[in-house]
Parts: sequence; structure tokens; C-alpha cells
Amino acid sequence: MAHVLGQNQYGKAENRIVRVYRDSTRHEIKDLNVSVALSGDLDDVHLTGSNANCLPTDTTKNTVFAFAKEYGIESAEQFGITLAKHFVDNNEPIHRARIRIEEYTWDRIKTPDNSARFIGSEEVGHSFVRNGGETRTSEIVYDGESVQVISGLKDLVVMNSTNSEFWGYIKDKYTTLQEAYDRILATQVTARWKYGFTGKDDEAQPNWNRSYTHVRRHLLEAFAETYSYSLQQTLHSMGTRVLNNRSEVDEVRLELPNKHHFLVDLEPFGLKNDNEVYYAADRMYGLIEGTVHREGVLPVIPVA
Amino acid sequence: MAHVLGQNQYGKAENRIVRVYRDSTRHEIKDLNVSVALSGDLDDVHLTGSNANCLPTDTTKNTVFAFAKEYGIESAEQFGITLAKHFVDNNEPIHRARIRIEEYTWDRIKTPDNSARFIGSEEVGHSFVRNGGETRTSEIVYDGESVQVISGLKDLVVMNSTNSEFWGYIKDKYTTLQEAYDRILATQVTARWKYGFTGKDDEAQPNWNRSYTHVRRHLLEAFAETYSYSLQQTLHSMGTRVLNNRSEVDEVRLELPNKHHFLVDLEPFGLKNDNEVYYAADRMYGLIEGTVHREGVLPVIPVA
Amino acid sequence: MAHVLGQNQYGKAENRIVRVYRDSTRHEIKDLNVSVALSGDLDDVHLTGSNANCLPTDTTKNTVFAFAKEYGIESAEQFGITLAKHFVDNNEPIHRARIRIEEYTWDRIKTPDNSARFIGSEEVGHSFVRNGGETRTSEIVYDGESVQVISGLKDLVVMNSTNSEFWGYIKDKYTTLQEAYDRILATQVTARWKYGFTGKDDEAQPNWNRSYTHVRRHLLEAFAETYSYSLQQTLHSMGTRVLNNRSEVDEVRLELPNKHHFLVDLEPFGLKNDNEVYYAADRMYGLIEGTVHREGVLPVIPVA
Amino acid sequence: MAHVLGQNQYGKAENRIVRVYRDSTRHEIKDLNVSVALSGDLDDVHLTGSNANCLPTDTTKNTVFAFAKEYGIESAEQFGITLAKHFVDNNEPIHRARIRIEEYTWDRIKTPDNSARFIGSEEVGHSFVRNGGETRTSEIVYDGESVQVISGLKDLVVMNSTNSEFWGYIKDKYTTLQEAYDRILATQVTARWKYGFTGKDDEAQPNWNRSYTHVRRHLLEAFAETYSYSLQQTLHSMGTRVLNNRSEVDEVRLELPNKHHFLVDLEPFGLKNDNEVYYAADRMYGLIEGTVHREGVLPVIPVA
Repeated sequence: MAHVLGQNQYGKAENRIVRVYRDSTRHEIKDLNVSVALSGDLDDVHLTGSNANCLPTDTTKNTVFAFAKEYGIESAEQFGITLAKHFVDNNEPIHRARIRIEEYTWDRIKTPDNSARFIGSEEVGHSFVRNGGETRTSEIVYDGESVQVISGLKDLVVMNSTNSEFWGYIKDKYTTLQEAYDRILATQVTARWKYGFTGKDDEAQPNWNRSYTHVRRHLLEAFAETYSYSLQQTLHSMGTRVLNNRSEVDEVRLELPNKHHFLVDLEPFGLKNDNEVYYAADRMYGLIEGTVHREGVLPVIPVA
Repeated sequence: MAHVLGQNQYGKAENRIVRVYRDSTRHEIKDLNVSVALSGDLDDVHLTGSNANCLPTDTTKNTVFAFAKEYGIESAEQFGITLAKHFVDNNEPIHRARIRIEEYTWDRIKTPDNSARFIGSEEVGHSFVRNGGETRTSEIVYDGESVQVISGLKDLVVMNSTNSEFWGYIKDKYTTLQEAYDRILATQVTARWKYGFTGKDDEAQPNWNRSYTHVRRHLLEAFAETYSYSLQQTLHSMGTRVLNNRSEVDEVRLELPNKHHFLVDLEPFGLKNDNEVYYAADRMYGLIEGTVHREGVLPVIPVA
Repeated sequence: MAHVLGQNQYGKAENRIVRVYRDSTRHEIKDLNVSVALSGDLDDVHLTGSNANCLPTDTTKNTVFAFAKEYGIESAEQFGITLAKHFVDNNEPIHRARIRIEEYTWDRIKTPDNSARFIGSEEVGHSFVRNGGETRTSEIVYDGESVQVISGLKDLVVMNSTNSEFWGYIKDKYTTLQEAYDRILATQVTARWKYGFTGKDDEAQPNWNRSYTHVRRHLLEAFAETYSYSLQQTLHSMGTRVLNNRSEVDEVRLELPNKHHFLVDLEPFGLKNDNEVYYAADRMYGLIEGTVHREGVLPVIPVA
Repeated sequence: MAHVLGQNQYGKAENRIVRVYRDSTRHEIKDLNVSVALSGDLDDVHLTGSNANCLPTDTTKNTVFAFAKEYGIESAEQFGITLAKHFVDNNEPIHRARIRIEEYTWDRIKTPDNSARFIGSEEVGHSFVRNGGETRTSEIVYDGESVQVISGLKDLVVMNSTNSEFWGYIKDKYTTLQEAYDRILATQVTARWKYGFTGKDDEAQPNWNRSYTHVRRHLLEAFAETYSYSLQQTLHSMGTRVLNNRSEVDEVRLELPNKHHFLVDLEPFGLKNDNEVYYAADRMYGLIEGTVHREGVLPVIPVA
């Protein structure tokens, strides 16, 4: 029985690029991790040892660095679209490019304002401290015809110290869990959202950076304001909040590990634990995943 | 515009279970990391705060541990099938269960054979050293009708110190790579393979452990014996070798990061580097991915 | 020749404790990772199998959780001192306790102020987002007589995009590095500082939280304001800045990996790289370590 | 009050070098991670911005790669001694060099012996699979007069499924632990051992590779053969076993995290758990550390 070469792709992963803008004494920096994956007419590369259709991964890396100079990096999404179109439009055998980008953000270091020491503070134009919170992500796919942009974030860790319950669930032979009427709810948010943008010639790009800021804010607000009866309910609130407020977004997918905080039994020591002392567990953990999308829009963000 | 709840699933992830068989002084151990994900009639859990259809993740955890005693763990696949069927067949609202398992293997510690010290050696029946090589993986999905099993491995690191070339590729404006006629080829194999097995009533399960051992062997042999003109070609050889030799397997998907080893330029120091001294780089790296499947079989292993 | 049991210690490591203060609707949280190490009259535990002098590591864990309720956690240092004294003062065979604590900080989630939507914002009293930046560290040692406190931080990543040079160094047969007159200087700060505090009966504890905030600020300011000819010089500025401004600190030790940012050669692509496009490397990296201490004070912070 | 520059050192860390020996079709490889730290007359580098006494970390990196060709790598220890002596003996301001090396080992890939397919197997001379078990470590210090070598290993994970008890310990107000008469004992061994070798002119170097193999074997055997009443007792057996059998070793220090395996309570499910089903916990964990050394030898391996 014959064998068939199925889906395949290749490229240079994790190109760690820092772009500095030095137009004034107030520098700007973009710090990205860019991964390229190309597909197309690559059967020979796999079957015969001919690399005639292969744009080397090393060249894809060079292109990333060169484009940072030639086109600049206004946003990860815009940069990714430019890269993806280049690879497909300029290499006959390449039919599809997927660019994944992680972005790390930096805050400015501030020092006391010398004109008013101990009162104001001023930023140092070339000094930065890395903001260690969530990582911004994006994935741009271009197939020669249209563009698909899925942006997101990961490692955004949040906690509600109250306003969370969990009860009324199925009880079977293997159930030992006690119902909870006041518990900590904590999770490490991974979110991905798909834009309606498809990259038609006359289609304006969304303001990607502004959109990111707002989606992130809506996720946080929905998490904080939802009185929760299950992490699923919180997930659904977070997704719908984004769709309700950001028309440029079509679909939201969330992965929410339940970072369990177990109440410690202090009774053996003659102490009462009124939801004050918790043990933060690593593993095992609940994992809640789900998609919310607009009616009539085909969801495309894959299950992890 | 209305919003729709799309694909969603939940369960307890990363249940770290060690099962000891103590039937004789020669103990056996199984060391697994089991993750459960359930889907079904869960709209209310997301929308109304009712958990009436929710089997708690805590209960799925309890079930994993209880089943290790009730049914034992002959193989990860068999254990996963038993779990998946239980969740779907015994919980009306649960329509689909996905069980993912990582397995860590242990070797026996040997001590000098006292009857012939310094000549033979004998194993200690209850003492083990963890084999730190690859992790065995499996994913079992059951939807109430049929079973799908995708087994695999990850973190199997291999190297050929010669018999690898790379030349004849596309050159464009951004190309600087020199062609190579003798290079190191090293990669960290992630492989997944799908079995033809679908869990029909009268269908015998493959010998999962034996199948794993053979697939792993064929992957290693194909890597070692392929004179390579590209990592894609090596990937294809590895996939087809498995399909050629293991009829129980339908589809193989491989992810092969190119762990670059760069020849160090020693000429500034008056030394000639005849492919002897390399710098092993971490990032960026080439990433080559692909599927090989039998003709007529629909490939199902998702892109990572 | 006889063998001797040398330095030994034991205890429960990495107790992950979250303490919630719920005295008002504005909750406060402390999130710590506490490790206990005890030493003393423990020869028998090692030699004879008698555990008569062994306070189990499980009990040290229980004590950590119980003390979070009994004594609260005002600061990691104060909590550590209370724990260390308890173990030594209440267990005859235990002569020395070392408590190491990592602290993770959380910011409050803010939502739009409903009385002035889109203008002000108000915090949600029970909702937090983890501040992913540096981790605060502390080590408290008590030997029955005096207390030693070494506080610190790790994973504080900083970058200067200019004002750094490196030239005038030794050139030998193995030198290929070009002198640099304008480079990026980036590092991931690990700092430890020892307090003069020794825990005498009438000795007031420093305000640990306030001291931490100020030391951190001085480290950042010194990094930002130093025009650097070597990372060693920057290190020295950072250490002396702390000693000059914080009289409660005696000694500062810094570990500064040089997170190399290499200028990418864009000339092959007809582009000029005016210190704009960098490749951020992972490994190898320069590692610069050093201590600055007050004259007459014996430095005690160990080399990593 | 004046400030003093205390202990300081610098160098290039984590030079990832792979050395291939291709003298026959049966290649040999050495895979090392080499870190250099130099100390000496470096006050000016810290204080004045003069780098006149600074051998750049980049040069130390070049030297590592060049020496791999010039002198070869017979063992990590020998390679480290050669490097350390070079840095101190050839750079007037450098008074002390510390070389730390991690070594990763590779096994040969075997393929079926074609002359007797399915019976014998033969190794492929240039194909290797990384042995994912423990990492071999070494630290070489040279101060211009004598050499100190501390070798070791880390991440050697071992388990005894029986022959371990723990009882008879101190009970206090915070004790809840039940005594155990048959438990799993598992740990991830970090071991360091100091050689008596001091590098005098007429002093032969030990056979470092052979010594490593034997020390590792004695650690495993002692772990397997000790009926344990505490992990401390097991630690002591492991250390003394090495000293009893390897005269070239003076001192052994072990760090043994107690990788807890908790018996799962299956009674709620009507099942009896006869030490068969365990939950493998990540954190918190007991941590047992200790040194065993020959009488009259000053122990020097630092506490971690």
C-alpha cells in the first residue's frame, strides 16, 4: 500500500529580535520572538533529496532581521503580515506562510526628577525594565489570497480571593469533593482571539496595539466582576465580554487551568481557618477550555 | 449579534500516578501523568451557573487513581481506553472523553552478584533508576462509538556526526548560508502515530507496549541509516519506515527541530577545524514538521 | 581511616502558602514559597536509624501554615524570623534554622469607575493580577543567639539601549572581539543584601518592606544612570548606591549575566545597521559577580 | 564610611561545545557545557572604567573552543585543568580560575546486524541517541599553586518501592504525620565529591572517567541495598560507600530531595490500597543534605 506525504511545513523558529528606535534621546524598543513556518510544493525535498524548492530556514531568519530594518516593527501583527506576504509572493513553490510571534514588553526606568527631587520622577530615555507579566502572542497566516490573524496572550495570572462557589455537580461513586460556597479562584490565562480582518487590498488594518490593550482589559474586568459558580462560567463571561466590546474580533478561545488553592486544615493545631490560609498546589490541576464566537462565523482557533 | 459557545472541554490535568506491583520480591512499577478532558452537554455550566451536568474534575482525578487499583495498568493505552469509556458510558451529559498520558520509564538497579562478585550482577527487585530519555505519550479519544489512539514519544535526542549534506536550495536577496557537504544533523524527535484500531466490540487491541518498542526502534534506525540531503528527507524516511514495518499504524507525524551545531572558526587561532569542534546552539532553530500516512486513510493528527 | 559526618541539614522545601487578609472588602494577599532547613544534634539520625532527634519535615511544613494564621505575615523577613526562632528555641536537638522565602507580588485589578465610566477607574477589592516581574527573596538564619537576614531579588531584567562601551581590554592569541563604543547593556539582576540587624532583644527590626522598595529603586536608578565601560563598573555602582543610601544594609552581592544583544550584520542585504537591529542571544553569556561591603564588616553572602 | 570591593569574578558561562573524534568510521563525541570564572587584580575594572586587566569573556569563550582542538577532551576534568592553568599562568592580573563543566552523554544507535538480521545488532559509527539520565558535573579551581577538583552528578532519579520506614521522631503541637513502616523512598540525587588530587608537578591525575563510573555505581548500590529508617541514613550510607571504595575521593556531599509518593486513600471507593497506588507530588518536598568526609580532611564543598 502506498504512502502519502501529508501536511508539512518548515522554517526558522524563535528568532529573538530586538529593534531599537533611536530617533530621539527617548528610545523605543520592540522585543520579539518570531517563528516562521512555510508550506507548498515541497514533495521533492522530502522524497528525492532535491532542495530546489527549499528556501533555507537560515534565509527566513535573515529576512526577519532585514525586515526589522527595512519595514520597522509597528506591531507584531503588521510585521508578521509583511513577512508572510513576502515569503509567499516572492517564492513560487511557497504557497502558505505562518508567522508566530511572542512579544515581551518593557517599562521605562524612572529616576527622581532632579529639579524636584523626592517629588516628581522622570524616565530615562534609554533605560528599561522588563515587564514580567503576560506574553503577547500573534499568529499570522497567509495563503496567497487572504490573511488570518489570531492574536492572544499567555501567562496572565489572576486571582479572586472570594466571589467564587462550586456546588450542585454530579455525584457518583468516585466523588469525594465537598461543595464550596466561598473559594479562591485563580488561573493562568491563555487567550487567543481571531480578527475579522482578511487582508483584502482595500481593507484597513485594525489598530493592533490598541486592540490588544482593550481585549486584555476586558478579560481582566470580566474575570474580576463575574461572581462565579464555575470556572466555565467565568470563561464564558470573559469571552463574551470581548465580543461585546470589540467588533474587530470574531472568536475568542480561552484555556484556563484552575490553579487550585486548598484551604489548610488548621484544626489539629487548635486554629480556625476562616478562608485565610491556603496551600497553592502545582499539579494536578483542573483545565477548562472553550471557544465563544459570533453566530455565523466559522470558528478556526484550534484546540491545544 | 448573538454569540455561540463553541468547542469546550474540561477535566483534571496531570494526575501523577505511580502504580506498584508487589506480587513477588521483584516489583514492577508504572509511572504515568494522566490528563482527562471531557466534552458534552455543558452549555448550562457555562451560561447559567448550574453544574448539574458537570462531573467535577476532582472526581475525574479520583477515578484515575481508583482505576489503577481496580483495573491495573498494563499499558497507558489500555488504561486510557478504560477511563475514556467509563466517563462517556456512565455520564449521560458527557459525550466525549480525551485521555492524554505521559509515561516515564525506570530501569532496575543492578548490584554485584554476591555469588560471583565482580563477575555477574543481579537486579534489586525493588530498586529503580529513572531512565531519563524520551517520554512515551498517548492520546485516547472515545466519543461513545469508536476509539482513536494516537501514541508517540517526545524528547528523543539523536545526532548523526556525518552523512548529512544541504545544498542546491533557493538563493534570494536574503541568502547568506553556505552550502554544506558534511554537517552534523541533530534533532529532538517528537513523534505521534495513529493506530488503525477503533475499539469495535470484537476487535483485539494491539500489543501496545510491543508496538511502541518497535516503532521507536524503526525511528532510530531510519534516522541512523538515512544519508540525508535535508532534514525533511530524514523525516520522510522515518515516517515511511514505520508504516512499512508496522501494519497497525496508519499515520505518522514528526516534529524535528534542527538542533544546529555550528562549526567554530578556529583560523584566527592558527587552527584548522576539520569538522571536529562545534558550537551547539539553542535558538533560533530550524523546525521541520510533516505527516506520512497510508493512501486512503484520512490523516487526523493535528498540527502542533 | 574513619569517616566523619560533616555539615548537614534538612527540612521541608518550597511550602507554597497564600495568606488572605479579609478584614474589609479590600482583601490583602501574601504569596510565599517557604523553605526550612534545620541543623543540630542529628548524628544518630544518620548513623543508627534512630529518629528521636528528628522533627519531621512534615511538621516543619505544618508549622509554616499554622504560623501564617497565628502570627500573620507582615513581611517575609518577619515571618522567617518567627519561624526560625520557634524551631531552635523549642526543639532541644535543633541548633540552627535557615528559612528561605520567595515572595510573589500581585497588583489589584482595576475596572472602570462606574460613577465616571471611561474617566476614572477603581480597584476590585478581591481581584488580583500577578506581577510577573522580579521575585523577592529572603534568607533568615538563627543559631540560638543571633539572627542574620539576607534579603534580595532575582529575575529583574533591565536594559540600557545606549551609554555602554567596552574597549581597552587585554588582547591575546585568542582574542577576536571588536571594541565597542556604543552597545546595548542588558542583564537579569540577582541581588542579595545583608542587614546589620542581628536580632538582639532590644533591637528594633527594620521596616523590611520599605527597605526592599528602596533598595530595588536604588539598583534600578544606578543601572540607568551609570555610563558604563564594563558590566563590572555598573555592578559596582549598583552596590555602592545601595550602601550609600540604606544604612541598614551592610553588604550587597550582585550576579549579573550579560544578556548579549549582538548587532546583526545587514550589509549583505544592502542595509546599514545603525545600532537598531539586534539578535538577543541565550547562551553562552558573560557572568559578572561581585560583592561590595562596608569597611570593617565581614562579608558573609556566599558565592553562588 | 568607606566601601570595599569584596569577592568578585567574571567569565563566559555555558559554552556549549561538541567535540567529534573522526579518526575512524566509529566516531566519538564529547558534549560539554563549560563555564569560566576568573578572579584577580580587577579593582580598576570595577572602579575606574579601565579594562586594562580584563581578559574579555569573549576571549575565554574562544579559548574553550580552541583548546578543544589543540588539547582535545579526554575528560571534563582534564580539560578543565588545562583551561584553568592557562588563564592564570598566562594572564598576570588573573590569580584564580574556576571552570565548571556539565557533560551530557550519548549512547550509540544500534541497527540490526545485516549478516544476521533479527539476531545480532551492530552500532552505527556516527549515530547517537542522547542518554537522558543524570548529568555529569565537575568544578576545577586553580589559584596559581594548586588544583582542586570537585566532580559530581545531578538529576539521577532513583526509587525504592519498599525497605523504607520512618517512625520514632519528635512529636510536637504541629505534628500530624503518621508513622510509616513501609513506604516508597524516591529522590533525585545531586552528588559532589572532592578528589585528594592537588595538581602537584609530579602527581598523576586520577583516571577521571573510570572514577566517575565507579562512584556513580557505588551511589546506586548503596541506595538500593540500604534498608532505610530515614533519608538521612540512606544519604550517610551512600557517602560512606564511596569513601570506603574510592581512595582518590576525600569528601562527598549529597543533596537528596525527598520526592514524596503519597498513598492514595481508596477506601471511599470500597478499595483497599496495599501500597500499590501512589500520588507523586511535586512540591513541597523534604530536602536532606549532608557531607561525609575523611577524618583529618577539611571539608570544602559548599552548602548549596
